[in-house]
Amino acid sequence: MQFELDRGSREPLYRQLATSVQQRIRSGALPPRTRLPTVRQLAQQLGVTRLTVHSAYAELQAGGWIEATVGRGTFVAERIEQLVLPPEAQLSGDVTPAGVMADLLRMSQLPGLLTLGRADPAPEHFPLRNWQRATELALAAGGGSLMIYTTAQGDLQLRATLAELVRERGFSAGPDEVMVTAGVTNGMSLAVTLLAPPGSTVLVEQPTYLGMLNILAARGVRVVGLPMDGEGLVIDALEEALRQERVAFLYTIPTFQNPSGVCMSVARRAALLELAERHKLTIVEDDIYGRLAYEGAATPALKADDRSGVVIYLSSFSKSLMPGLRMGYLVAAPALIKQLVPLRQAQDICSPLLTQRALSVFIEQGWLHSHIRRMVPRYRERRDALLRAMERHFPIGVTWTRPRGGFSCWVTLPAGFAETELYVSAISRGVAFAPGQVFSGGAPSGAHMRLCFGAEPPERLSDAIVTLGALLRERGTHRDLPTPALGDYVPVV
Amino acid sequence: MQFELDRGSREPLYRQLATSVQQRIRSGALPPRTRLPTVRQLAQQLGVTRLTVHSAYAELQAGGWIEATVGRGTFVAERIEQLVLPPEAQLSGDVTPAGVMADLLRMSQLPGLLTLGRADPAPEHFPLRNWQRATELALAAGGGSLMIYTTAQGDLQLRATLAELVRERGFSAGPDEVMVTAGVTNGMSLAVTLLAPPGSTVLVEQPTYLGMLNILAARGVRVVGLPMDGEGLVIDALEEALRQERVAFLYTIPTFQNPSGVCMSVARRAALLELAERHKLTIVEDDIYGRLAYEGAATPALKADDRSGVVIYLSSFSKSLMPGLRMGYLVAAPALIKQLVPLRQAQDICSPLLTQRALSVFIEQGWLHSHIRRMVPRYRERRDALLRAMERHFPIGVTWTRPRGGFSCWVTLPAGFAETELYVSAISRGVAFAPGQVFSGGAPSGAHMRLCFGAEPPERLSDAIVTLGALLRERGTHRDLPTPALGDYVPVV
Repeated sequence: MQFELDRGSREPLYRQLATSVQQRIRSGALPPRTRLPTVRQLAQQLGVTRLTVHSAYAELQAGGWIEATVGRGTFVAERIEQLVLPPEAQLSGDVTPAGVMADLLRMSQLPGLLTLGRADPAPEHFPLRNWQRATELALAAGGGSLMIYTTAQGDLQLRATLAELVRERGFSAGPDEVMVTAGVTNGMSLAVTLLAPPGSTVLVEQPTYLGMLNILAARGVRVVGLPMDGEGLVIDALEEALRQERVAFLYTIPTFQNPSGVCMSVARRAALLELAERHKLTIVEDDIYGRLAYEGAATPALKADDRSGVVIYLSSFSKSLMPGLRMGYLVAAPALIKQLVPLRQAQDICSPLLTQRALSVFIEQGWLHSHIRRMVPRYRERRDALLRAMERHFPIGVTWTRPRGGFSCWVTLPAGFAETELYVSAISRGVAFAPGQVFSGGAPSGAHMRLCFGAEPPERLSDAIVTLGALLRERGTHRDLPTPALGDYVPVV
Repeated sequence: MQFELDRGSREPLYRQLATSVQQRIRSGALPPRTRLPTVRQLAQQLGVTRLTVHSAYAELQAGGWIEATVGRGTFVAERIEQLVLPPEAQLSGDVTPAGVMADLLRMSQLPGLLTLGRADPAPEHFPLRNWQRATELALAAGGGSLMIYTTAQGDLQLRATLAELVRERGFSAGPDEVMVTAGVTNGMSLAVTLLAPPGSTVLVEQPTYLGMLNILAARGVRVVGLPMDGEGLVIDALEEALRQERVAFLYTIPTFQNPSGVCMSVARRAALLELAERHKLTIVEDDIYGRLAYEGAATPALKADDRSGVVIYLSSFSKSLMPGLRMGYLVAAPALIKQLVPLRQAQDICSPLLTQRALSVFIEQGWLHSHIRRMVPRYRERRDALLRAMERHFPIGVTWTRPRGGFSCWVTLPAGFAETELYVSAISRGVAFAPGQVFSGGAPSGAHMRLCFGAEPPERLSDAIVTLGALLRERGTHRDLPTPALGDYVPVV
């Protein structure tokens, strides 16, 4: 068996090998039940490490292309016919926040797919060398003591570093007001567990982050979606909702919202805080995109003007650094932290101490800031490429937001479009996006797509838009312009 | 300011420095509000890296010895008087599973304390170099693609490795029956969330692991403790409990139980499975100590004889490798895994992919097995040192178990001893153990101590027992022998 590898390419060798094997299977050159060479044989033949072959085989096995039988060897999968079918056959068919989230997580392992589906950063620019240096520095100082348990609140050295870091978002905190979490999702999950018992009501922006809807659904919490416009959450609608019912909290992403891309205006923030104070409404602020601003500095966090302590501030390093770290944090009053800590202790005890210490070193060395400085122009370029391509290739009647930060662009389709059908068709043509309905805290109105531009370079974003544009045109060019209904999101072009 | 460091010592430099500063504070040489040198100054003066000084300062700050004020410098803490008092002043006073767990996690940062309180492995023997090699090998093959998200069920390569690994515990599984968890605690937490709604009943062994009691209390689940004897869980008592009420599941640690150290006999295991099958009782098996057997091979897991799929198998690498990895796994029917995966997704999305892949490499390279082979004789030596010291230094009337694996020894005190008072007094003399009541799923009967021997070398274990023996004798030598009540644990000497 002969496979060509290009050692000059930026694509890792194992992935080239996986793609190459997959193409042979697709073309029929390697029919079902064909025995593949052993890892050792193939590594020797190609002059690569065994781990490279092992990784390629693991990826192919994950995708269902090959099967390994202990003591017998590795074979092209029997039921490969299913995989040679378009990739939409691999969708779960469950178009809920949980289902789409799981499908998009799984599909990140499909080679070749244009992934505008997930709000991921650019993996080819991850600062892996500095991360390894930070880990080595931490280990050199701490040794084995960094591989035992730590407290559920998190390592004090990291908390002190984070307390400094949030000053750049406009507020100050002590290490006792900081809690380390396993990503921002974990912060949300802990806040929901503490504040929103099953059957209670949580207010969200409409649309909002599907991960939060997933958490609320899993807990049996009622969700009420509040309308947004180009300045963010509509405050009158919030006031109306607060008059009508008791709510556990409001969840908001004021800065570069996911999925809409909207940044809440300064006036709205002030009105929101004033209202929250008056109604003793707890606000859970998700500031995960707050450091990814493409047009000047970002508006300070809502927490910056929180005089009465109603805001629980959540953030993480999944967008500004690397999601695989699974490192986030929250800032809240010490009394609230004291109630959150036992919940984390009962969930998984603590985050890995070595990762916490390495992250602290990484930030203290200035490597977080240099990474963000390097990435902001690249992400701006990607956003611009996406916007340009949409202007060029999307039919009239389709509208979208123009995000000034973050990774998400919210596209509104003319009335009559079926976004789920479009979602499945797009995947069958190699483009993944997230359908609008999974971001909806109530009955969704209108058809939408969330297009993310962080994880793909400009050329690939353009390719994806060409494909999506063709799909949209095939479905008819003479639709009505969308009429934003009450409770729907009003697009800002 | 002059601090002596011993470069020939096995103790890390930062810790030597921290201890040295602390001694100066204790002695009054550095009074409250004294300004300390900057990190840069002290590093230069001592000829160490800035990170070493930074780590020492962080540890001192964590313990409350020093305080840093931004822009002003680092100072000896104002309220240092409290710290110069015996360390029992730092206990939370909350003698519940959650409170003691938090206290013991925090006290691991107190230098000098003899820590028999937590079931930790030996940090000075952690295979850090091989772990770093495994991480580098994984990164070399996977690159940036290992720093994005993966599925909540876990990396397929690791799941395939784990499916192989469990064969050594007597059963086989496919990768689709394996789910990666953030330690065994996370597996428990997910199982409780799925199977035990608030207000339901869970059966546990009496005594049982405090972490599980902590999880059940946090969720508002009723706990019924079942008696054990030298062969493990008493089956008649289980049958009686099943007749009396509907239970969500039974939680058991059949192999080298924490805290009792007992290993369930083969006959009991068979009877337990037969009963569970008949009553359709779900069993959550915690096999975290199954690979740490000091007298021949361990009994195979309960799961090995589970013909009808009633057992959910949990394990982790926190005891056999390093708890700081926060890596565990569960094995269950695919239908059950499908229900657990969305819960993990709603909690923190996934475990770090790089750690998963590195762990897979680590195991595939044989480094897990070589580490365990190296550690088993050391842990046996520690256990023997503990048992010998207790025989020599504990007064008549005190009894204990003789564990054939794991890290826990369960000590029963004569009637009339107050274990909480003893717990506080022992900490004030520099010895931490866990008081028996926090392992009790009902009203505790009798006074107990859990003594763990994994994390301290033989000499230090002996020192701790000398101190505890003196404390026991001070409290009276002529007590009655304990009379095991129904529902209490019968000690096996």
